[in-house]
Amino acid sequence: MAGNTFGTIFCVSTFGESHGEAVGCIIDGCPAGLLLSVNDICVELDRRKPGGGGASTTRQEADKPEILSGVFEGKTLGTPITIVVRNQNQRSGDYSEIKNLYRPGHADWPWDVKSGFRDYRGGGRSSARETAGRVAAGAVAKVFLKTFGIRIHAWTQAVAGIEAPEWGDASFDFDEIEKNSLRVPHKETAENIMIKVDEARKQGDSLGGILSCRVEGLPPGLGMPVFAKLDALLAGAILSIGACKGIEFGAGFDAGKMSGSRNNDAILPGAGSSRWEMPENVPDASFQKNDAGGVLGGISTGAPLEFRAAFKPIPSISMPQNTINKQGDVRIIEVKGRHDVCVCPRAVPVVEAMTALVLADLVLLSRGDRV
Amino acid sequence: MAGNTFGTIFCVSTFGESHGEAVGCIIDGCPAGLLLSVNDICVELDRRKPGGGGASTTRQEADKPEILSGVFEGKTLGTPITIVVRNQNQRSGDYSEIKNLYRPGHADWPWDVKSGFRDYRGGGRSSARETAGRVAAGAVAKVFLKTFGIRIHAWTQAVAGIEAPEWGDASFDFDEIEKNSLRVPHKETAENIMIKVDEARKQGDSLGGILSCRVEGLPPGLGMPVFAKLDALLAGAILSIGACKGIEFGAGFDAGKMSGSRNNDAILPGAGSSRWEMPENVPDASFQKNDAGGVLGGISTGAPLEFRAAFKPIPSISMPQNTINKQGDVRIIEVKGRHDVCVCPRAVPVVEAMTALVLADLVLLSRGDRV
Amino acid sequence: MAGNTFGTIFCVSTFGESHGEAVGCIIDGCPAGLLLSVNDICVELDRRKPGGGGASTTRQEADKPEILSGVFEGKTLGTPITIVVRNQNQRSGDYSEIKNLYRPGHADWPWDVKSGFRDYRGGGRSSARETAGRVAAGAVAKVFLKTFGIRIHAWTQAVAGIEAPEWGDASFDFDEIEKNSLRVPHKETAENIMIKVDEARKQGDSLGGILSCRVEGLPPGLGMPVFAKLDALLAGAILSIGACKGIEFGAGFDAGKMSGSRNNDAILPGAGSSRWEMPENVPDASFQKNDAGGVLGGISTGAPLEFRAAFKPIPSISMPQNTINKQGDVRIIEVKGRHDVCVCPRAVPVVEAMTALVLADLVLLSRGDRV
Amino acid sequence: MAGNTFGTIFCVSTFGESHGEAVGCIIDGCPAGLLLSVNDICVELDRRKPGGGGASTTRQEADKPEILSGVFEGKTLGTPITIVVRNQNQRSGDYSEIKNLYRPGHADWPWDVKSGFRDYRGGGRSSARETAGRVAAGAVAKVFLKTFGIRIHAWTQAVAGIEAPEWGDASFDFDEIEKNSLRVPHKETAENIMIKVDEARKQGDSLGGILSCRVEGLPPGLGMPVFAKLDALLAGAILSIGACKGIEFGAGFDAGKMSGSRNNDAILPGAGSSRWEMPENVPDASFQKNDAGGVLGGISTGAPLEFRAAFKPIPSISMPQNTINKQGDVRIIEVKGRHDVCVCPRAVPVVEAMTALVLADLVLLSRGDRV
Repeated sequence: MAGNTFGTIFCVSTFGESHGEAVGCIIDGCPAGLLLSVNDICVELDRRKPGGGGASTTRQEADKPEILSGVFEGKTLGTPITIVVRNQNQRSGDYSEIKNLYRPGHADWPWDVKSGFRDYRGGGRSSARETAGRVAAGAVAKVFLKTFGIRIHAWTQAVAGIEAPEWGDASFDFDEIEKNSLRVPHKETAENIMIKVDEARKQGDSLGGILSCRVEGLPPGLGMPVFAKLDALLAGAILSIGACKGIEFGAGFDAGKMSGSRNNDAILPGAGSSRWEMPENVPDASFQKNDAGGVLGGISTGAPLEFRAAFKPIPSISMPQNTINKQGDVRIIEVKGRHDVCVCPRAVPVVEAMTALVLADLVLLSRGDRV
Repeated sequence: MAGNTFGTIFCVSTFGESHGEAVGCIIDGCPAGLLLSVNDICVELDRRKPGGGGASTTRQEADKPEILSGVFEGKTLGTPITIVVRNQNQRSGDYSEIKNLYRPGHADWPWDVKSGFRDYRGGGRSSARETAGRVAAGAVAKVFLKTFGIRIHAWTQAVAGIEAPEWGDASFDFDEIEKNSLRVPHKETAENIMIKVDEARKQGDSLGGILSCRVEGLPPGLGMPVFAKLDALLAGAILSIGACKGIEFGAGFDAGKMSGSRNNDAILPGAGSSRWEMPENVPDASFQKNDAGGVLGGISTGAPLEFRAAFKPIPSISMPQNTINKQGDVRIIEVKGRHDVCVCPRAVPVVEAMTALVLADLVLLSRGDRV
Repeated sequence: MAGNTFGTIFCVSTFGESHGEAVGCIIDGCPAGLLLSVNDICVELDRRKPGGGGASTTRQEADKPEILSGVFEGKTLGTPITIVVRNQNQRSGDYSEIKNLYRPGHADWPWDVKSGFRDYRGGGRSSARETAGRVAAGAVAKVFLKTFGIRIHAWTQAVAGIEAPEWGDASFDFDEIEKNSLRVPHKETAENIMIKVDEARKQGDSLGGILSCRVEGLPPGLGMPVFAKLDALLAGAILSIGACKGIEFGAGFDAGKMSGSRNNDAILPGAGSSRWEMPENVPDASFQKNDAGGVLGGISTGAPLEFRAAFKPIPSISMPQNTINKQGDVRIIEVKGRHDVCVCPRAVPVVEAMTALVLADLVLLSRGDRV
Repeated sequence: MAGNTFGTIFCVSTFGESHGEAVGCIIDGCPAGLLLSVNDICVELDRRKPGGGGASTTRQEADKPEILSGVFEGKTLGTPITIVVRNQNQRSGDYSEIKNLYRPGHADWPWDVKSGFRDYRGGGRSSARETAGRVAAGAVAKVFLKTFGIRIHAWTQAVAGIEAPEWGDASFDFDEIEKNSLRVPHKETAENIMIKVDEARKQGDSLGGILSCRVEGLPPGLGMPVFAKLDALLAGAILSIGACKGIEFGAGFDAGKMSGSRNNDAILPGAGSSRWEMPENVPDASFQKNDAGGVLGGISTGAPLEFRAAFKPIPSISMPQNTINKQGDVRIIEVKGRHDVCVCPRAVPVVEAMTALVLADLVLLSRGDRV
């Protein structure tokens, strides 16, 4: 397993440093015959773009993907799909002063230890810019999953401890998510969080948060026990996003406080509405509640897949911090530049993309489940 | 990627159903020349064995591993190491009545959907019994890691909401961990939890909990961005354990409530005590605190690796639950048999084993980091 | 990729040294619901067993496979299938004298350089004994392929330059193959070769040969360009057999002497008899001849797959040879023991097994070819 | 394993159709700190370019590679190296008439069966154009291998049955290889072959041939038994080249005619000149001759690695051939366009590139051989 390659059949490699020529991806294993246009990718890359005055960086990014291979006459060929996004407007000068200083909370120093040197311009491969390749690949996975009726939605659940209503709460407002720059599913919560965000920006500080993700239309039976369980693959996928520090499925950490009689989801007869072929002699089922988060023993249950992921505050802050330089001397660093205050809204399409990559691979792997 | 195979260079496949002939593993890629005895494996399997009256099942398991290949004259050959543990004392009769009922909280129904049928005896491949193969493989990985001074320790941090002191607290008692049957690092907390455990057992119920894991002696530079980050691989590894529902590194979900100035770990000059070769021109470093949990940008920092994992209550409870049978009819199920009340103490060696597998692989992969 | 693991979905790991406890395999990825008995495996292992006085070793091997996991009530579970074959009757004393001498033509010295030491008893992991695990796994693959009507047959085409008639020749006698101990498809050729074999045995020498393999019932469309082409995977699979030194498909090396007008196989309308689902709008086709050997651009054509593989003489000969000892001193070695004269007849089931592993994997991978 | 990805640590994905936007590769796993310039890649791509009047196509290809990522300040970063080569001057009109006809000897029909449709313009992904990505990746592998003194050379050994002297023959002329357009190591043989080539061109026919490859400076100990043997990996790599139909190592198919006493290479004390670290207590060795072709038991011996590969005649010929159209009707096809007569000279850098990819991966994998 090479570190920049993900998946078994629907196999994605991403590439690119933040201030190199380009970022992008190759998708090796997308089935032939899928209708795909460059616009499908633009839509997702645009969602990753910084908003207009919200929690995100004010840098202008015009991400125009180019499909170099794998699509012919509007359909995938079954050959590798290569998508390239050129880097623009990097203003490398912003970063020249940190060439010799290790930024706290960043991978600068571990990367130097690992590789002997690094691309110091804006984080290089460790920059959030890297996720553009993931989002482009995830866009293709989403198109594939849509043909099965599988829909993935993530949103900002909380920032700096201010929590939005949860899915299922009366005040949860799905349509609000893409309306506010924080991607919070509740207008007032979004406004309250924005006050915190503005304060942090003025202080040169940043804020952490929690994302929720929900997948509907997922058939039961996806996931490959024991190591490629659905939740195991998702955990690996989501934790591979730069600032992510934790994940929980369904009741998650709260399940650690529960009794079995409280946590187990009772089984009921199913609605029989599945679009997927069920094996003979196996009845359809449904669940009284969904503390499992849609996964049991690493296999999808047909209930909605639900998880939450914790994102740390963006480590690039302009407040003074202690660090060392390349010579090992003690120094004070103030990280300048146009940085996001909270990664959450821009992490939403990235979480969706990684989820899509896992699911597209499992949908294809599941074709080998039975004789 | 086949679902029962884990790792790239230090590559492990596990096998076995709970009531089949045997469980075990093949380790393909362990370097040659490692001193290894069957006792190294027994020690870890014994830690996985049910204790005498604690939170765990009272079934008698005498797990005697046999090494079938890969070791010659007390040293690894560099060829596949095969370890087999025969299943004994299964009392299959205990399980015959649930052949036609889907147990809530278990993988019974999703597995039937996936495969068309299943080994219904005690969970089959989804049984916790499966982890014996992981623990055997992890024992070999631990022996390998020990040659580099890398030490892995897990313990029960909380059960049913009752929390033990954290590492670093004055009352944290490392030596206590292996003394009580719950593997809690504090005697009084262990006693309080045991009261809860006894109550649950009487009611035929079960309890969830939280495990902590800490790795010391880990060199900086391990982890392969972007998808094979240290924390991403660990998240995938730990979430692949049956009852695990969440993981967090360092400050974890709390980082989602923090500001960057609070969360960032300031960098200090290092003690220069690393046993590993550092690249030229890169200074040694250390960190003022460790909210990062020992990993930045997916690469180890040299600070202790720290994570917590949430385990749901064991779903096998004898209290009545609603479910359906193979014909899809509504039924009441009471799961009989000798089941653990809380998975935590027996999950400790499993968490350590999976951590060891990830680290052994990354230690070997890191040999390709630099020209 | 670990060196002892083969395949992507139908993924096989083999293990075992010739004089260790056992040899065997894990098959991770065999679909659920396949009817499988231990007898299916015995049949193939018996074909690998030395015959009674032919070209093969006279050692008595009673290979009794045990299935440790993955099969329940006569059907595969979709979980790892583990097969163990105990080693018996090793007479280790035969090998003690070569502990300190490097045998020419064997991997003794390269293995010592690689690993620092080796299991010197009978070749250890490099022994032909290792192929028992492959044959066991291949037996399962064959059962899987048989459900699609795919049939694999190999035979001894030539030994020491004495060639048997080729498939399609009037004198080619398919039924003869399993009747003579050399597996030659022509009685008189077999007798002529046996004279040569007996001569070589008396001189303490050995003989090389050529195997042919033919697969019928293979559907068109198998193979994953560009690196996992059908012929590329087969070449890697067959060359991984210890004594194999070459492979050619269809016209093979003769194609290097041909013109395109001679080598190209003209395309004709197909018989429409394929058991496989063809994509809409693609006509059935057949080929006027089969110089391609059933593969074009790495994809199966539906014509019989045909290849030939060259096997060197078994390097264990009792004639004196120059070598060095572990101290680097010049020595004469005469390799004692009961060794085969020609590997070909016993390589037949191994070639079939490796072919089956490649095809089983490609059949499963092809399920992801189209949306 | 996705079909367009090759290798474990030094892991390469290639992409691109012949008449799409571009071809190229990602190298994921090249160690950090390697000096690399775009010129290193241009040199190899130029060798793949059609010559001036020789056996190759007269199309003008100006392949200008662009490095999009992974290189910073002239050194590899340890991150994915992405190389893109734009397609130019395609004259798509040449191919429009074969849109509905299946060309004999090409993958047109199998590809349609596999994927349901194909890029019919010039072979799409099955075109020899695809190898530009391999050559670019191989150029990087060559630079890496050169730092260890490993040198790879291939040449045209024979065309249409006319054979050049072999390495070691007095008349073998190494310097001649890159001087004639056929890459034949003997001036007169090259001239004789060119007469045949000109004849074939006039007739609208094509010619097959044999390539030889020789690697010097390879240390002993490379290769991962049992499935990732050096020769197994090379066989898979070389057979993945479009027109390749066979491979043999050392004595190859002739070994099938030999006795063991003739074929075994006697072992002698080594010269002790190895640049690689040998394990303690293992003596250096050399071999009296090299019928093994530099590999025993799948592990390199330190002797030169030697193999030969058979290439079929290019299937695109303008002579009339029988085929069918997309409706399944019988048709006559005459393939127009500027096609090479013999693939051999342009296959030389491709064979070298694939060999380099295998060796770079094994050099890195071997770092995990011993504790």
